Amino acid sequence: MKLNANEGVPSKQECVSKVRPITDALYVLNGKWKLPLIFTLRENAQRFNEILKSVEGITPKVLAKELRDLENNEFIVRKVFPTTPVTVIYESTSYSDSLNGVLGELYNWGEQHREKIRHSMRDRKRP
Amino acid sequence: MKLNANEGVPSKQECVSKVRPITDALYVLNGKWKLPLIFTLRENAQRFNEILKSVEGITPKVLAKELRDLENNEFIVRKVFPTTPVTVIYESTSYSDSLNGVLGELYNWGEQHREKIRHSMRDRKRP
Repeated sequence: MKLNANEGVPSKQECVSKVRPITDALYVLNGKWKLPLIFTLRENAQRFNEILKSVEGITPKVLAKELRDLENNEFIVRKVFPTTPVTVIYESTSYSDSLNGVLGELYNWGEQHREKIRHSMRDRKRP
Repeated sequence: MKLNANEGVPSKQECVSKVRPITDALYVLNGKWKLPLIFTLRENAQRFNEILKSVEGITPKVLAKELRDLENNEFIVRKVFPTTPVTVIYESTSYSDSLNGVLGELYNWGEQHREKIRHSMRDRKRP
C-alpha cells in the first residue's frame, strides 16, 4: 500500500479507515476489565466488595480506577443511598445496552475457545 | 456472596463462572492491537511494513510481538516465499473466522460510539 494517491491504489487514509471503528471501540473498552465489569453489572447492580468477588483477579485499586472510567464513559452510574453507613451501588446504564451484541459474541467465543484449548491439550496428552 | 454452599446462596465459584467466558476471551485477545490486526489480515494477507501502515499507531517492536502471539494462538500464519530477498506474508487462518461475530459487533459498536461522541461534543459547543 503506497502513500501516493495513484488511481486504484488505496491511499494511507483509506487503508487506515477500515479498521478504525475497531480501534475506536477498543480505545474506550481498553484493558481486560471493562467488558467483564459491564457484563457483571448488567446482570445485577452491585456494591464495590461484591464486584470484587464477582470479577476474579481484579484488585481494589484497579477496580476503583476502572469504575471511574466506566462512569465517565456513561456505561455505569454510582448511586449513593443515605443509610448509616451510606450504601454505594454501581449500576449499568441504558447506554451499556448498546454493548449487548459485543458481550454476547465475546461470551460465545470465549466458551468455544476454551473447548478448543481443552481438546488440543487432551490430544497432546495422547501417545 | 458467601463462600459456604448454603442452599440458594451462590458460592463464589458460581458467581465467578458466569463472567468467565468473557475474561477467557479477553485473556487471549488482550491489548488494543490483536483484534485490529486480525481484522486487517482478514481483509487481505500483508507484509510486515504494510501492516504497519494499515494499523495506525502501532510500533514495529510491538507489531513483531503481537504477530508472534497471534501466530502462537493460531489466528495467523507466517508464510515465507523463496524470492530474493525472501518475501514474508502474514495471513489469517480459518480459525480467525471464529472471530467474525466479535469483530462485526465491535465494528458496529465503534461506529455508533463515534457518532455518539460527535453528537455530545456538538451539543456541548451550543450556548
